[in-house]
Amino acid sequence: MTPPEMENRATALLAAYKEKGLKIATAESCTGGLVAALLTEISGSSAVVERGFVTYSNEAKTELIGVPVDLIAAHGAVSEPVARAMAEGALVHSRADVAVGITGVAGPTGGTATKPVGLVHFGLARKGAATIHLERRYGDLGRANIRWRAVEDALSLLELAVR
Amino acid sequence: MTPPEMENRATALLAAYKEKGLKIATAESCTGGLVAALLTEISGSSAVVERGFVTYSNEAKTELIGVPVDLIAAHGAVSEPVARAMAEGALVHSRADVAVGITGVAGPTGGTATKPVGLVHFGLARKGAATIHLERRYGDLGRANIRWRAVEDALSLLELAVR
Repeated sequence: MTPPEMENRATALLAAYKEKGLKIATAESCTGGLVAALLTEISGSSAVVERGFVTYSNEAKTELIGVPVDLIAAHGAVSEPVARAMAEGALVHSRADVAVGITGVAGPTGGTATKPVGLVHFGLARKGAATIHLERRYGDLGRANIRWRAVEDALSLLELAVR
Repeated sequence: MTPPEMENRATALLAAYKEKGLKIATAESCTGGLVAALLTEISGSSAVVERGFVTYSNEAKTELIGVPVDLIAAHGAVSEPVARAMAEGALVHSRADVAVGITGVAGPTGGTATKPVGLVHFGLARKGAATIHLERRYGDLGRANIRWRAVEDALSLLELAVR
């Protein structure tokens, strides 16, 4: 189930958002709903978690949150531009104030020389502020570990946005 | 993290869907993305998991998967009609063949005499077949346990649809 330290972080995060009256949306590809699942583990999260998109297929990225087909074709689904577009698209297609987008290669298959297993791109979009991009290369830690590391970094970005 | 027996069930489920060329969409309220997160824990799940909706707010239920405002007003978000509408809406608003909708009272707050903590309604929608409804009353087992029980029942419904 959820590691207790993650739950504590999520609890503090939600309290900080609630205090400022800010809502969160998520757009998850490689984490497949883990960030939303973690945040909604906390009682009272409905005051903050507005909605989440699990855009696992490229069609979902385009149809649900408006990531341009051309952007995916030009840069690949795991790329800085797509991570930014996912976060910004989640913001536009929700009633949230802050949105995080996550796209990566969780493995064990699907890695390439330039986009190895463990590569994850994050976007953090906020109303009235520039989108933040973060790239991580965790290495081939195994699928579950890569996904949890990505959840931790998504929390860090969401924390950053509320400070 | 994920209980091993759940991961085994998810692995078998995905293999069965893959063999039949069927794709899955999820529409989650009280489970908040846990079903999608569990399914995407499995390597190769992208062949089956098409997209997921975490429709935590009522607005998300309406805007993302077309659950009528009037239906929520008449029956409440945790109800058989809304669970059915969530599953059917996820099917329409995706490229999936089977969709599961989950709405419940995970607690510890939010329970009433008629809709106590632990009440969860499920809808399972399939292309060309009648939607299935399931109601569970788990009792006040605690938020995390109620959510996991709901994930197990969602898997059972998805298994049923591929038999």
